[in-house]
Amino acid sequence: MSTGFARVAVLGLGLIGGSILQTVRHAGIAGVGYDVDVAALEAASSDGFAVAPSTAAAARGADLIVLAMPLPAVRDAAAALRGHLSPGAIVTDVGTLKQPVVDAVRAELPGVSFVGGHPLAGVEDTGWPAARPAMFRDASWSLVLEADTDLDDWLRLASFVCDIGARPVPTTAADQDAAVARVIGLPHVLAEALALTGLAGGPLGLTLAAGSYMSGSRVARTRPELVTTWCDGNPALPTALDDAISYLVEARDALRSGGSVLSLADAGHAARINWEHRQVEPVELRADAAALVAHGRCGGWITAVLQEPDGVRLLGMRPV
Amino acid sequence: MSTGFARVAVLGLGLIGGSILQTVRHAGIAGVGYDVDVAALEAASSDGFAVAPSTAAAARGADLIVLAMPLPAVRDAAAALRGHLSPGAIVTDVGTLKQPVVDAVRAELPGVSFVGGHPLAGVEDTGWPAARPAMFRDASWSLVLEADTDLDDWLRLASFVCDIGARPVPTTAADQDAAVARVIGLPHVLAEALALTGLAGGPLGLTLAAGSYMSGSRVARTRPELVTTWCDGNPALPTALDDAISYLVEARDALRSGGSVLSLADAGHAARINWEHRQVEPVELRADAAALVAHGRCGGWITAVLQEPDGVRLLGMRPV
Repeated sequence: MSTGFARVAVLGLGLIGGSILQTVRHAGIAGVGYDVDVAALEAASSDGFAVAPSTAAAARGADLIVLAMPLPAVRDAAAALRGHLSPGAIVTDVGTLKQPVVDAVRAELPGVSFVGGHPLAGVEDTGWPAARPAMFRDASWSLVLEADTDLDDWLRLASFVCDIGARPVPTTAADQDAAVARVIGLPHVLAEALALTGLAGGPLGLTLAAGSYMSGSRVARTRPELVTTWCDGNPALPTALDDAISYLVEARDALRSGGSVLSLADAGHAARINWEHRQVEPVELRADAAALVAHGRCGGWITAVLQEPDGVRLLGMRPV
Repeated sequence: MSTGFARVAVLGLGLIGGSILQTVRHAGIAGVGYDVDVAALEAASSDGFAVAPSTAAAARGADLIVLAMPLPAVRDAAAALRGHLSPGAIVTDVGTLKQPVVDAVRAELPGVSFVGGHPLAGVEDTGWPAARPAMFRDASWSLVLEADTDLDDWLRLASFVCDIGARPVPTTAADQDAAVARVIGLPHVLAEALALTGLAGGPLGLTLAAGSYMSGSRVARTRPELVTTWCDGNPALPTALDDAISYLVEARDALRSGGSVLSLADAGHAARINWEHRQVEPVELRADAAALVAHGRCGGWITAVLQEPDGVRLLGMRPV
């Protein structure tokens, strides 16, 4: 099993794809970019990055192909790769939701080695101009291990993610999408609701809106069509919304009957502070799919994939 | 009518009170501080600020007294001022909710000139160490104009707020509390609910939590007992929660039936972006209570209170 990748093709040069192309060069790996948007392609090229004229041309000779286009374009991009992948090439992606991508790639590229990924990084700004090579430093990066995922390929990709300074989190598509419902989908829906409820209060409220409104509605700045790709079709999001709604209903009913939000505020404060101060400890792991997925489910991540005479050894961190 | 204050007493030297005492000195006005907490008093004193040994001593000779203690302590502080106010002294406060303070001061200090205030500034950090003189620069500052508010006193306080770099917003206690329900109470309740719903998803989610979770739950870092003083007893907050809940229920139902959050995201995005890019225009105002409250209700604020031969002239800004 060879670990490093010799040539990485990044398809889609927006914030995430652009940052990956820049990160790859920073790590000393050959990279080539492609985007259906000629402006993005020209911007990357004029910044000195190698670009290709088509999906097929970008994939030529690449041993890692990163699907970094918006979710609705993934299926067509996968189809465009058919017949153009080098032997042994691995395909990955960067989408927020993993199940739709796993399904699309299985349908369009049967038999191809695919390891779904999701770097937990980003800002509200978008496009190549916002991309930067340090985007993924210390960021969690979901790496999907399904029953049909080749473990050696998964380990190669985990090693690559470590090499670019991020933290591979082993997970299944279902586990990751359920988690993302609560920490990406939900905060976006809440931010939209806050922005609208604030607006409905009229101009005095908008003048008095300050820090808490500003941070609470910050991600409502995200382009709506991106928000939909992070929310729509995630079966875990309605359940997360149920939970949040029940907290809000409880608070509303308490207030309406002359009660207090104290118990909610106490619990929410503890949850936030404990999250910030979460302690982790180092751990050694076997290169075993079930053990890795269990590690991710416990909040753990990988810090190194070591090739040793008697096999692969993984180092990681997990919450205490 | 004299405009400037000669001596400002600040009762309560936490984040807001401490910042007012520092701002007052910065503006060249004599100030004296008092806090029931000896540690805060010593910290202010060792930083070179004049402090008094009691509420009554602080009020002696002061023509502006600022109640800057937590809401539950306001009534006792007002009672402690009885008989110790100089003739013509004005009392103000800085609490998030105005109706409870108006009620407490009316009960404890009948006949005393009171103008409720609320600077829209602050951070999650608390106490004298977090206080800073630039805290209120360009901050909105609600100034309550009730039927029994002396307009000349209100104008003096508005002039003072302008002098320290903030933006007086004329409003009634009911108007301001209704606005605050949507832009302070609601974002705090949503942040608590987000923190808890994220936690309930287990450790994988907490590992994947990144930017949107971090900003969405930021104000859950606020001390719970402060959150309760901003939420409990505000009759407008349950209504604001009703509105937010209905957006969330709509989004949940859409998702559960295979639909999209697009319409919510479109509307929320527009609300947030329009808030950021709100255009304002200069306006001249009469020194008339009804006109001023109407100006505040339209989102306007005061930029200057000018003493002219034929009376008071106010300059302000209002949304276009």
